[in-house]
Amino acid sequence: MSARNFPTAQDAENAFYEALERCDLEGMMAVWAEDEDIVCVHPAGPRLTGHDQIRESWARVFSAGPRARVHITSQVAISGMMLAVHSVHENFVLPQQAQGDARPVPIVATNVYLRTAAGWRMIVHHASPAPAEKPPAAAEAPPPKFLH
Amino acid sequence: MSARNFPTAQDAENAFYEALERCDLEGMMAVWAEDEDIVCVHPAGPRLTGHDQIRESWARVFSAGPRARVHITSQVAISGMMLAVHSVHENFVLPQQAQGDARPVPIVATNVYLRTAAGWRMIVHHASPAPAEKPPAAAEAPPPKFLH
Repeated sequence: MSARNFPTAQDAENAFYEALERCDLEGMMAVWAEDEDIVCVHPAGPRLTGHDQIRESWARVFSAGPRARVHITSQVAISGMMLAVHSVHENFVLPQQAQGDARPVPIVATNVYLRTAAGWRMIVHHASPAPAEKPPAAAEAPPPKFLH
Repeated sequence: MSARNFPTAQDAENAFYEALERCDLEGMMAVWAEDEDIVCVHPAGPRLTGHDQIRESWARVFSAGPRARVHITSQVAISGMMLAVHSVHENFVLPQQAQGDARPVPIVATNVYLRTAAGWRMIVHHASPAPAEKPPAAAEAPPPKFLH
């Protein structure tokens, strides 16, 4: 397992989406907390818990390909000392769409991060299909809000 | 607005599902934090943010009826000083099912609570339809149709 350390929840989130785009299973699993209470819900999927189920699911996703680009927009973030919650829109662009002007596939995700001895790690990823989003106004997104 | 105070995140969660079962809009909104960054995703729905959008959505849900019973199972909870995250299975039994032996409609939900000056309040409710609850037999699972 990777010894990567994420100083902030945002660092962990960036690594999560980089691993997703690269179909990088080791990179993906290095983002997750080493805890059996981790939870992952893929779009329209069941709730998966624990490393074995979650690792296996990402292995399937990555083996099926194709690699997609993911643009994150409209983040809402709230952070405590130990937990951070990010709500995001994931806009997937599939390789076959890249040449055209097809709209991204919209997914809404809730990501939760835990501060561990090894830095911030993901403990929940809950993704679900969303109706098409209005033109994204990512540049206008407010800054993350901190509790203290 | 109700002045109810929830000493724990679990108290807020209980009040949330009681309000949902009773189609009690005021009770429902009293569970939510008074914060414009609150997030609600109904099953297969878009992300809603802020009190106005969320209140309106619950008003629609409740006006459409019918009242359902909701049995919460398989809770996974993690709590910090300021934030608490509950992952649950919501098992809906609709009134027309009550006489028969129809299976509950399974929903997976991620609920996030914030400790405020007025006690614990909900800040995120993300619900999505789930396949019938069984330990997923990953080896037999069909190839994922979705992106992740």
